[in-house]
Amino acid sequence: MRVRLDLAYDGTEFSGWAAQRDRRTVQGELERALATLSRAEPRLTVAGRTDAGVHARGQVAHVDLQPEVAADPLVHRRLDGLLPPDVRVQRVAAAADGFDARFSALWRRYRYRVADGPADPLRRRDTLSWPRPLALDRLQQAGAGLVGEHDFAAYCRRREGATTVRGVLALDWQRESDGVLAMTVTADAFCHSMVRSLVGAMVAVGEGRREPDWPGGLLSRAERATDVPVAPPHGLCLEAVGYPADGELALRQHVTRQLRVLAGDEPAA
Amino acid sequence: MRVRLDLAYDGTEFSGWAAQRDRRTVQGELERALATLSRAEPRLTVAGRTDAGVHARGQVAHVDLQPEVAADPLVHRRLDGLLPPDVRVQRVAAAADGFDARFSALWRRYRYRVADGPADPLRRRDTLSWPRPLALDRLQQAGAGLVGEHDFAAYCRRREGATTVRGVLALDWQRESDGVLAMTVTADAFCHSMVRSLVGAMVAVGEGRREPDWPGGLLSRAERATDVPVAPPHGLCLEAVGYPADGELALRQHVTRQLRVLAGDEPAA
Repeated sequence: MRVRLDLAYDGTEFSGWAAQRDRRTVQGELERALATLSRAEPRLTVAGRTDAGVHARGQVAHVDLQPEVAADPLVHRRLDGLLPPDVRVQRVAAAADGFDARFSALWRRYRYRVADGPADPLRRRDTLSWPRPLALDRLQQAGAGLVGEHDFAAYCRRREGATTVRGVLALDWQRESDGVLAMTVTADAFCHSMVRSLVGAMVAVGEGRREPDWPGGLLSRAERATDVPVAPPHGLCLEAVGYPADGELALRQHVTRQLRVLAGDEPAA
Repeated sequence: MRVRLDLAYDGTEFSGWAAQRDRRTVQGELERALATLSRAEPRLTVAGRTDAGVHARGQVAHVDLQPEVAADPLVHRRLDGLLPPDVRVQRVAAAADGFDARFSALWRRYRYRVADGPADPLRRRDTLSWPRPLALDRLQQAGAGLVGEHDFAAYCRRREGATTVRGVLALDWQRESDGVLAMTVTADAFCHSMVRSLVGAMVAVGEGRREPDWPGGLLSRAERATDVPVAPPHGLCLEAVGYPADGELALRQHVTRQLRVLAGDEPAA
């Protein structure tokens, strides 16, 4: 029986999502807890494989469990009880027919927090502290030039035979009530370190070292732009993953798989 | 030369504000940094002596430094450079004539965060996670019964000869955009563990174990109410301290000192 898990984690002490031998990872901790719960070795499939140090508030994964384990009304509480305090299960629910956390996803939404004023020590784990002031209007102008379907090769780590075309549905900067600058970006998928590279380019504009049309102008390049700094991971958080209505899940999964096969590619963060 | 310091800290790893031998405290870390900077042994005076585990975003302290140290334009940066990442100096400024961080203060404002829904691991250091739902309207009703000048003996740790009369100027609960319940309370001063005791009583009302008039009803008691649970420290944060206009500082300090002497009392959190 397929179960959908909605997850949140503080990525500070994790070597990212993906299980690795001898490293503490989110997938590793969750699969260990699920193994204890189910006395089997369930494998998780996730919507966004976050890097080391990246956080999540709206991560989605699925796992196939024995019906008696999945249907246990205490499964959520038991699972949380087996997990360390830096990973929490927000919701456990039977997955709709055809649901695949990775291939059914329509979009992923990330957020990046940068403090260009006094640092708040209580948010130092999820906020980049920037030593110089950043101009909100310049950040917004830079962001506007990145929306749309483009080849993001300049912002991606190259993988042989994989496309770097992605569709950015929205990208916005705002100053929050606590004075912190927050960027929210939504795309069908992201390639490796793409959000952090976009932030690195836009911050250079925000502090006046680059012109607002520079980040968008890099989209014409066919390969990684070495002059784009990659922002540190701890400011980044996966906020949400969007799925189609239940009746369209199987179709979406099929289409995504076919596209990925054709492109030799897979979604990542 | 007297300097005003505006401070923020993550209280998680501190045994509170006040310096103690062999314990890591906020005052201890700051005085060590100030000693390195000034090659003297400056002593800090603070507006709100927070307990172990309590945080601050708007703490205020003063310290008397040699004029050449205080007037160094890099003093703020140097001080931050000498401090660990869980204490930050938000602002360093010459204090107005007659300024005393403790005795000039007109009010202190604290905030307490309680999550009664899914826990956010990124906020687990400054948010109490509550396992049952809390009713906002009941919390608000309970809070309304606590505003005003009262004898808060039921909510205070008793000290011989000290008054427990305090003036609560405002107390409000609201549900934040992240779903967390936040209480904000402003008073001329607080006695020891008073905010956490008030929260403990109101949470009992919020989850339906007590009636909304119970917390206010306890104000008639002459001593500590042992049936009031003290909420854990990590949900609590000192948000701001209010001072009069510069011209009235000396007068305020004088009045407060006289009142404290008469009452045999001192402000604390």
